[in-house]
Amino acid sequence: MAAPLQSKALCLSGFMSRAWLLPEHIADVLPAQALQVESLRRRLIDQAARRGFELVIPPLIEHLDSLLSGTGRELELQTFKLVDQLSGRMLGLRADTTPQAARIDAHLLNREGVTRLCYCGPVLHAQLPRSVGSRELLQFGAEIFGYGGLEADLEIQELALDVLADAGAAGCTIDLGDARLLRAVLGEARVDTPTLQDMVQALSRKDAASLEVCTRTLPAATREGVLALLRLYGDREVLSRARAVLPKAVAIEEALDELAWLAARLAAEHPSLRVSFDLADMGGYDYYSGVRFAVYADGCADALARGGRYDEVGAVFGRNRPAVGFSLDLKALALLREDGSLQRPAIRAPWADDAALKSAVRRLREAGETVVFDFPGSAAEECGRSFDRELVNVAGQWVMRPT
Amino acid sequence: MAAPLQSKALCLSGFMSRAWLLPEHIADVLPAQALQVESLRRRLIDQAARRGFELVIPPLIEHLDSLLSGTGRELELQTFKLVDQLSGRMLGLRADTTPQAARIDAHLLNREGVTRLCYCGPVLHAQLPRSVGSRELLQFGAEIFGYGGLEADLEIQELALDVLADAGAAGCTIDLGDARLLRAVLGEARVDTPTLQDMVQALSRKDAASLEVCTRTLPAATREGVLALLRLYGDREVLSRARAVLPKAVAIEEALDELAWLAARLAAEHPSLRVSFDLADMGGYDYYSGVRFAVYADGCADALARGGRYDEVGAVFGRNRPAVGFSLDLKALALLREDGSLQRPAIRAPWADDAALKSAVRRLREAGETVVFDFPGSAAEECGRSFDRELVNVAGQWVMRPT
Repeated sequence: MAAPLQSKALCLSGFMSRAWLLPEHIADVLPAQALQVESLRRRLIDQAARRGFELVIPPLIEHLDSLLSGTGRELELQTFKLVDQLSGRMLGLRADTTPQAARIDAHLLNREGVTRLCYCGPVLHAQLPRSVGSRELLQFGAEIFGYGGLEADLEIQELALDVLADAGAAGCTIDLGDARLLRAVLGEARVDTPTLQDMVQALSRKDAASLEVCTRTLPAATREGVLALLRLYGDREVLSRARAVLPKAVAIEEALDELAWLAARLAAEHPSLRVSFDLADMGGYDYYSGVRFAVYADGCADALARGGRYDEVGAVFGRNRPAVGFSLDLKALALLREDGSLQRPAIRAPWADDAALKSAVRRLREAGETVVFDFPGSAAEECGRSFDRELVNVAGQWVMRPT
Repeated sequence: MAAPLQSKALCLSGFMSRAWLLPEHIADVLPAQALQVESLRRRLIDQAARRGFELVIPPLIEHLDSLLSGTGRELELQTFKLVDQLSGRMLGLRADTTPQAARIDAHLLNREGVTRLCYCGPVLHAQLPRSVGSRELLQFGAEIFGYGGLEADLEIQELALDVLADAGAAGCTIDLGDARLLRAVLGEARVDTPTLQDMVQALSRKDAASLEVCTRTLPAATREGVLALLRLYGDREVLSRARAVLPKAVAIEEALDELAWLAARLAAEHPSLRVSFDLADMGGYDYYSGVRFAVYADGCADALARGGRYDEVGAVFGRNRPAVGFSLDLKALALLREDGSLQRPAIRAPWADDAALKSAVRRLREAGETVVFDFPGSAAEECGRSFDRELVNVAGQWVMRPT
């Protein structure tokens, strides 16, 4: 039954330009939505600035080996590759800005104290998005370098929650996990890298059958611990269950204490927030090295923001500083709530070679009004914008009146 | 003499990470400069919005054939190519946003009336920049679609001049030319495309010797006209010289009349502006089809903004609308003037698990202040920022005092 449709499409492509077709999961942002994105962009950068986060603008392309230093396989698969004609070297189009921020902290700023950086720019993904969504994200993120304490984790989580609230996210849940738990549970057991990757993938996908297979060679007690991680998700009672079923080890106790510390403070500051735990969550980037989190909201299929601690990434740039941060896709976030007040009605003015008109228009624009010229013979009412006032010439004076 | 230095560099690369090295002519924008860029970005978008230009955000990557439709060879050479894993098709990383704006006007908005669009996002150049500069520009541009009259050209030129003035450009010169002049001078003479390209290149480079060569087969009178173009640059007297030396043709008269019309209005509205002409200027993109312009400022080697009329670009997307626009590099523009008022001194606060402190900090931030927490044991004075006030606990109350 599909054949006639297909042949019609083939036929159309023969005589119609299809130059306007965009690649899969790549889209334009048109005026109404772009206004929302731009407004949100400014509010998020300003919110971060008021907490001391300084804006940086890393480049879109870098040498592939810099871009992927210490970041793992998932990011490598997501990175578009291209060749630099000037050097013949392979470049990558960034799929994530976090490693670039770590490079800037480690190499360019080289400060001793705590450094807070934020950024807002496009990232591209070579492969299909995890859920519905775009391959070109407008990534906003914030990172704290140089402080290993939980106070920095908390500041990052609270910034993420505040910017999501500003964007209109309702019914938020913060889901906490810790990248160290699997390693701590494995303890002294020797596991090769492919097997470890299989375990991480099985845990992330809550795939019990695969986890059974790849843990088969582990000592029985260790294996029990890894399999237990799979069921350790839910609300606060997860932490007491974890203390009961996971092996007794200092590293595990510490990780669980840290999660409890953060959860208590988040709950105190954000009474309507739901705090949940997923001790098997290993999704997202491979560089996390401590507490990690994802924030979900009502009506959104995927997490709106993800973050965590990644103390190892700066090492390859010559300085291994503690680091914690989060990022989100501003384009997705801007879809949450449409702010109708952003598109204000404009003033229409006829075009005339008249100094008095030009100065009236200039004054209105300086006062923040939008004034659009009707070119001779053109029809402003067809331009897709609403006008509530117009400038008209009454007895030689330019006056404004409602339309 | 270079050998010892080189071997030292090779030796260093052996034991030091060089992962922080960026590709040639690619750079980070660090906090102080990023603050200038972001502030300028907002002012330019707002200036355009007050004139009715609606923001759009086209994607960074498109199918190569869409991206290069009707745009000519220079843009093709400047475009990074990459392969889409999802489709196997060749994609381009945009080197210019103008053709994308034309696509949006022609295909997505599909309005009958005049459409004003603006955009602000990165573009990448595969080759070395024309002068000193970066291969990653932050391109801001504005375009008017659907009006063929000079009023639209003038509006674009005035917007370009106003945003440059806002950015601190001093001693500006606007240089006017017209892409139709060469074609009009050639008239009925048949010229193949490679020869025409050679002529355009020779004219752009003011290369008299090459122009002599590639015009050799033209009829004598036509050739005289083309050679005359080469000397037609300077101030207003260029137009009268052109009327004297160029062939008598309606198209030439019209083009010169249009340049005179624009020059008179620009001079009237901008008394300190220098208006000059370069009737041989063919630099920049190949898509221009009418009046074109470049704006120079004191102390800048290259033009700060370039624009013109390009009525043909939309055709490939199914709708051939009149179009005129300009663009500039916001990163280069932000270097013109450093606005010291952007980095305001901040307030320092100790970190404490104290509800009264948290609410004091929240109130200050809501009032627009920057409040930075000193994490326990961390040294805020080393973070590269200046603090002029601090929150301290005096007898159980959090109060602010100068530092």
